[in-house]
Amino acid sequence: MPVNLHFPNNLLPVAGVRLGPAEAAIKKPGRKDLLLIELAAGSRVAGVFTQNSFAAAPVTVCREYLAAGAAIRALVINAGNANAATGNAGVADAKAIGAAVAQSLGCEATQVLPFSTGVIGQRLPVARMLAAIPQAQANLRAESWGEAAQAIMTTDTVAKGASRRVNTAQGPVTVTGIAKGVGMIHPDMATLLAFVCTDARLTPAATQAAIKQAAAESFNCATVDGDTSTNDSFVLCATAQAGTRDIDIADADYATILAAITDVSIELAQAIVRDGEGATKFITIEVGGARDAAEARKVALSIAHSPLVKTAMFASDANWGRIVMAIGKAGVDGLHPSTVSVALDAVPLIEGGEPHPAYREELGAAVVAQSEFSIRVGLGRGTAQARVWTCDFSYDYVKINAEYRT
Amino acid sequence: MPVNLHFPNNLLPVAGVRLGPAEAAIKKPGRKDLLLIELAAGSRVAGVFTQNSFAAAPVTVCREYLAAGAAIRALVINAGNANAATGNAGVADAKAIGAAVAQSLGCEATQVLPFSTGVIGQRLPVARMLAAIPQAQANLRAESWGEAAQAIMTTDTVAKGASRRVNTAQGPVTVTGIAKGVGMIHPDMATLLAFVCTDARLTPAATQAAIKQAAAESFNCATVDGDTSTNDSFVLCATAQAGTRDIDIADADYATILAAITDVSIELAQAIVRDGEGATKFITIEVGGARDAAEARKVALSIAHSPLVKTAMFASDANWGRIVMAIGKAGVDGLHPSTVSVALDAVPLIEGGEPHPAYREELGAAVVAQSEFSIRVGLGRGTAQARVWTCDFSYDYVKINAEYRT
Repeated sequence: MPVNLHFPNNLLPVAGVRLGPAEAAIKKPGRKDLLLIELAAGSRVAGVFTQNSFAAAPVTVCREYLAAGAAIRALVINAGNANAATGNAGVADAKAIGAAVAQSLGCEATQVLPFSTGVIGQRLPVARMLAAIPQAQANLRAESWGEAAQAIMTTDTVAKGASRRVNTAQGPVTVTGIAKGVGMIHPDMATLLAFVCTDARLTPAATQAAIKQAAAESFNCATVDGDTSTNDSFVLCATAQAGTRDIDIADADYATILAAITDVSIELAQAIVRDGEGATKFITIEVGGARDAAEARKVALSIAHSPLVKTAMFASDANWGRIVMAIGKAGVDGLHPSTVSVALDAVPLIEGGEPHPAYREELGAAVVAQSEFSIRVGLGRGTAQARVWTCDFSYDYVKINAEYRT
Repeated sequence: MPVNLHFPNNLLPVAGVRLGPAEAAIKKPGRKDLLLIELAAGSRVAGVFTQNSFAAAPVTVCREYLAAGAAIRALVINAGNANAATGNAGVADAKAIGAAVAQSLGCEATQVLPFSTGVIGQRLPVARMLAAIPQAQANLRAESWGEAAQAIMTTDTVAKGASRRVNTAQGPVTVTGIAKGVGMIHPDMATLLAFVCTDARLTPAATQAAIKQAAAESFNCATVDGDTSTNDSFVLCATAQAGTRDIDIADADYATILAAITDVSIELAQAIVRDGEGATKFITIEVGGARDAAEARKVALSIAHSPLVKTAMFASDANWGRIVMAIGKAGVDGLHPSTVSVALDAVPLIEGGEPHPAYREELGAAVVAQSEFSIRVGLGRGTAQARVWTCDFSYDYVKINAEYRT
C-alpha cells in the first residue's frame, strides 16, 4: 500500500514532447512496457546517472552520446529487463534499439538515448522490442504522460508523475516529469528512472546546472533500502519551445524555472519513497546543528538505513533507543550525547542525550502511528543541516523482494 | 530458527573462574537475568567496546576502570535493560551495582566491571539487582557456563558458548567463552556481549594483544543487520592459573593460546550470526583480489548489508544481479566489471563482469537452497582479501524487531 500516493491524472503536456507507449512483451505480454519520448529539434538534454561500478549498458550508451554532445531527439525506455551485467553485447543491444528508433524518426543513432529497468543479467529481447517501435511511434501524443508513467513501472504499485506551470518574463513555462522505482533506491544517484521535461528555453549550461541542483534537492534525499541500482538515470529535457530567447543561469527567470523543476523532482522523489517496497509510513528525517552538511547527511542516512529503526517505525513503536543507536553509529567524530536532541514531529524525546523529562510513551506513539511524520535530530555542534525521506520496513518489503523473480 | 546451532553442553570449566546466575526480575520475573563472574586474584583482563557515540553507561564505567589499571576481580552482567542513554544517573547506577558486588566479594568497587544489555533509555532497577547479588554469589560455581550463557540472553533463541583445550610447554590451557546477541550486530566492534576466559598466564600486554587480534578475526567479521549497539563489549580474562611463568607475545606458547582464543571467539561470532534475528541461512562472504584488505572488506560488507541480497537469499533465489549491484555500490574507486568474478560455493556465476557461459539457474539455486553456503567474489585487481559472516533477511526479522517492545 503506497503512502498517500495516487495516480497522477493532471499531468500537463509540454510543448515539444510527445510520448508513445507500446507493448513489447519484454518480460511477459499483457502490458505496455516500452516508451518512446520524442523531443522537438533544438531540445537541450542533460542527465545524471548511477555511481554503481556495474553501470548498466544503457547508462554507458547515454554517457557516451551525451559526452559527444549529440542533439538528443528521443528517449527510448523499457521496463522488465535492466540490460545490466550484459557486457559488450548489452551495449550493442541498447545501441541497436536506439538506432532503430533513430531510423523511424529520421535522426542519427547518437541522438536517441536508451534506458532500461528490470531484471539484471539477461539480454534484452531485441527482436520483440524492434517490432514494437512502430507501435510506439504511432502512439506518440503530447497528452500521454499518465500512460507513459505506467509503461515504465516495474514493482511500482502507482504510476508517478508531477507537473508545475510557472510564469516567467517570457510567458508561462511548463514542467512535467515521470519516474519509476520503489526499491534499490539510494541517494547516490537516486531513483531508478526519472524524466523531467520543460518547454523552457534553457541554455545547455543552464540545463546541466538545473539537473544537478534539482537532483541534489530531490532524488539524492530519497532512500528506500540503501541499495543503489545499476541503472539509475535522471534526465532533464528542455525543449526550448517557450519564449523567444535563451535563459542562462544568470537570467532572473532561471531561478523561477529551476524552482519548478526542483518541485517536480521532489514530488517524484517523494512518490518513490511513498511507494517504497512494502512502505506503510512516509518518514522525513531532519538533522540540524551539524558542523557541515555532510555530517548532517551522514546522521540522517544512518537513521534512514537502520533496519532496526525501520522495523520499529513499521510497528508504530516510538523506540527512540534505536534512533539514538543510529545517530551514535553514524561515525561523527567527537559527537557527544550531551549535545544531542531528538524529537518526533513536535514531541521532544531526547535532550542532552537523555530522555526529555516531559516525554511519555503515549506522546511518541501518537506521532509514529501517523502515516507521515518527522524524526528531528539536533547535533548541537554547528548550524548545517540535511533532510532525507524514507519509509518503514515491513513484512511486505521482504515478501516483494523475496518473490521478485518467481 | 537458528541455523545449525545447539545449546553448548560441553563448556569446560576454567581454573580461576566461577559463575553465579541469579534472578533479578529486571525486565520481568521468571528467568535468570543477572550473572556474576568471579575471577581469581591476579587475573589479567582486557576489553574492546562499541564505537557508537552513544556508548552505554556500563561501557563508560568499564573504560574508566580498565584505563585506571584496576586489577579486575569480577564482572556483573544483566539482561533486560541496556542502561544506555541514561546519562550520569546511569553511570551512577552501574557503579552502584559494581560497588555492591565488590563489597560482597571483599574487593574495591573499581575491580568490578559492569555490563548491561536490553532495552535502551530506561534506568536500571537497581534495588532489585542489589537484592539479587547475594543469590548470584551463593550460586557461584566453576561448572555453570551453560547456565551463565542463558542468563545473558535477550532475544537470543539459543545460548552461545564454546571451549577449546590446547597443550603448551607449561601444560594444558583451557579457553571457554560465552556470548549473547542476535540483532544490532555490526563489525565495528562486534557482538553485544562476549566474555572469553582462559587459565593461561598471559601477561597484561599479551592479554591486550590477544583480544585485539581475536576480535579482528571473529566478532568484527560478523554482521546481522549492520546496526551497532550502544553496549557492545568483548572481554578477555586470563586467570593465570595454568603454568608457572608469564607468557608474553614473543613466547612460542602465545601463538597456541591466541589460536585457541581466536577459535572460541570465531565460534561465538558465528553462533551470533547463526542465531541472527529471523535467520534461515548462514552465509560466508569471501572477497579476494582486492588492492588492500579495507577494499575487500568494504565489498564484503556491502553484500552482507544489502537488504536486496539478504531477502533474495531468504527466498533461496540465486539473484546474482543483486550481488553484482552490491559489489558495484561498495564505492571501490576505479573498479571495472570486466575484472570481477562471482561464485556461489564452487559454482561460477560471473566472470569478467558477465554471466559465466556454463552458469545455469539450477546450479545457483541448488547452492542457495542450502542452509550454509559461500558467496565468493574476486575483484581481479590485487591480492588482499576479507571474509565476513552474515545471515539472510526474513519475515521473522521484521516480526522480531517490530514486536520487540510490545
